[in-house]
Amino acid sequence: MNAFSDHFAFYKNLVEESLLRALPEPEMNWSENQIPRSLAIAMRYSLMSPGKRLRPVLLLAACDLMGGDLQSGLPFAVGLEMIHCYSLIHDDLPAMDNDSLRRGKPTNHMVFGESTAILAGDALLNEAFDQMAQSCHPNALKALRAISMRSGARGMIAGQTADIFSENANQNAPEVRYIHEHKTADLMIAAMEAGFILANADPNELAKAHEYGLKFGMAFQIADDLLDRFSDARHTGKACGKDDKKGKATWPSIYGNLKAKEDATLFIRDAVNAISFFGERSAFLKELALNQLNQLENMAVEVAN
Amino acid sequence: MNAFSDHFAFYKNLVEESLLRALPEPEMNWSENQIPRSLAIAMRYSLMSPGKRLRPVLLLAACDLMGGDLQSGLPFAVGLEMIHCYSLIHDDLPAMDNDSLRRGKPTNHMVFGESTAILAGDALLNEAFDQMAQSCHPNALKALRAISMRSGARGMIAGQTADIFSENANQNAPEVRYIHEHKTADLMIAAMEAGFILANADPNELAKAHEYGLKFGMAFQIADDLLDRFSDARHTGKACGKDDKKGKATWPSIYGNLKAKEDATLFIRDAVNAISFFGERSAFLKELALNQLNQLENMAVEVAN
Repeated sequence: MNAFSDHFAFYKNLVEESLLRALPEPEMNWSENQIPRSLAIAMRYSLMSPGKRLRPVLLLAACDLMGGDLQSGLPFAVGLEMIHCYSLIHDDLPAMDNDSLRRGKPTNHMVFGESTAILAGDALLNEAFDQMAQSCHPNALKALRAISMRSGARGMIAGQTADIFSENANQNAPEVRYIHEHKTADLMIAAMEAGFILANADPNELAKAHEYGLKFGMAFQIADDLLDRFSDARHTGKACGKDDKKGKATWPSIYGNLKAKEDATLFIRDAVNAISFFGERSAFLKELALNQLNQLENMAVEVAN
Repeated sequence: MNAFSDHFAFYKNLVEESLLRALPEPEMNWSENQIPRSLAIAMRYSLMSPGKRLRPVLLLAACDLMGGDLQSGLPFAVGLEMIHCYSLIHDDLPAMDNDSLRRGKPTNHMVFGESTAILAGDALLNEAFDQMAQSCHPNALKALRAISMRSGARGMIAGQTADIFSENANQNAPEVRYIHEHKTADLMIAAMEAGFILANADPNELAKAHEYGLKFGMAFQIADDLLDRFSDARHTGKACGKDDKKGKATWPSIYGNLKAKEDATLFIRDAVNAISFFGERSAFLKELALNQLNQLENMAVEVAN
């Protein structure tokens, strides 16, 4: 353990505790205001399966960097992770990516059936906003909107739609950029902006947060695409090589592996530059991005093979 | 036309105009912040297909009754209709109710395919909260939460889950009450409460709004169940007799048709009593409930046949 991983674990533990508190116990006696047992269990199954919690950690770290109150960041961290989680459940459905493995476990619909998986996803998306709406922070509505703007039809869902339509289609560079920006980077941007908004950041500071989220998100997705090509299920906890089998538009499929690795490195550099504006306070977010770079460099050996 | 139907049309037109403004034009050049064309068209197809707009009209009427500003109710009316609309799209999916007809037109997935229908539903749910979050009303967050609490895992989605699990299972009276309350009445309650909250209602007034929404919603669902038994697609715009074929728990299937009709009548009486507290200002909502009663009475002939 070092200072960085301690710091990451500290944020992550806050998130895990809040996620557990946010989810009700599964009980069912058809009584008023109880969640049906199967729905509660299905929501919990996906939300509490081991994950990096990267987006909520980003949100808390962003809030912390600006001197904001971590407690007031938690409803938004929880909401953002619920949005990420619902998107995975729906993405894995037979009509979508048809995946059977996620985070090393069978996907939600494999365990609970398609109808419960659809409803559990819907419920997590709805619950995300319900959690955020419980905030008493004066900027709560603004922070909620920073997230809702980037998780919907102009954000993450736009990226997912383009991703699905890219399968076995003619692909080009603007298209893959659009997919990466929306499918992946938008929630990273939302995390950074919501954290900053809760700490009363000014427009110039918000622009730095946006730049970090965008560039970190792009690098993260390219690394994920390379991992899909060069790793296996033992390392990633999900089936690999699937993008190519499906003919999906990815950065490596458009630009080749080496250029993809180079571009990801440049995106990381941009992210680090943007956040360095905040001097010493940016240490954690800087190291988070540089860790991504290290992973890429270790992967390069495999890419070259 | 009479005063009531003019009044209804006035609220409904406000809703329709706001829905149209809320949805972006379908365009797609993979450029920043544009919604993919297929997604935008699928969202618009379901949201703009002819509907009664009952929930948003309730919300505006509730706000109006309390002397609230109708303009400030619109983002919430729009959000509520988007939530209702997404729930229909997902409900109709093959893995759910597997319906091919809705409001007289092919269901969303029949036209656009399952993956786009799932994403269009997700996008409408997300957009609902994005619309509400754009409100500048001092009670915006409270009104948003009145809706998010009742549309999620403790509300409408709880009802949908119980409804799906009721198919061909042993059914009992508490179960069918749970399904009706959550699947249908919860959004009516949300409409009433949000409208009242935006007009600064006190807790006693809110309790009347809750009672009206609950009882009106129960009667509405029982009437819908009877309609499913005794009407055909020419009248309802959707396939009929499906509940019984699927072995769903409905009020008539548990209590029989005549008792169902009687109970619905009693629920209407309760709703009218609750809203009469507000004297002359309650005229519209009183007549809305009594219209439901007239429909039930006209239906009785068919029930008796």
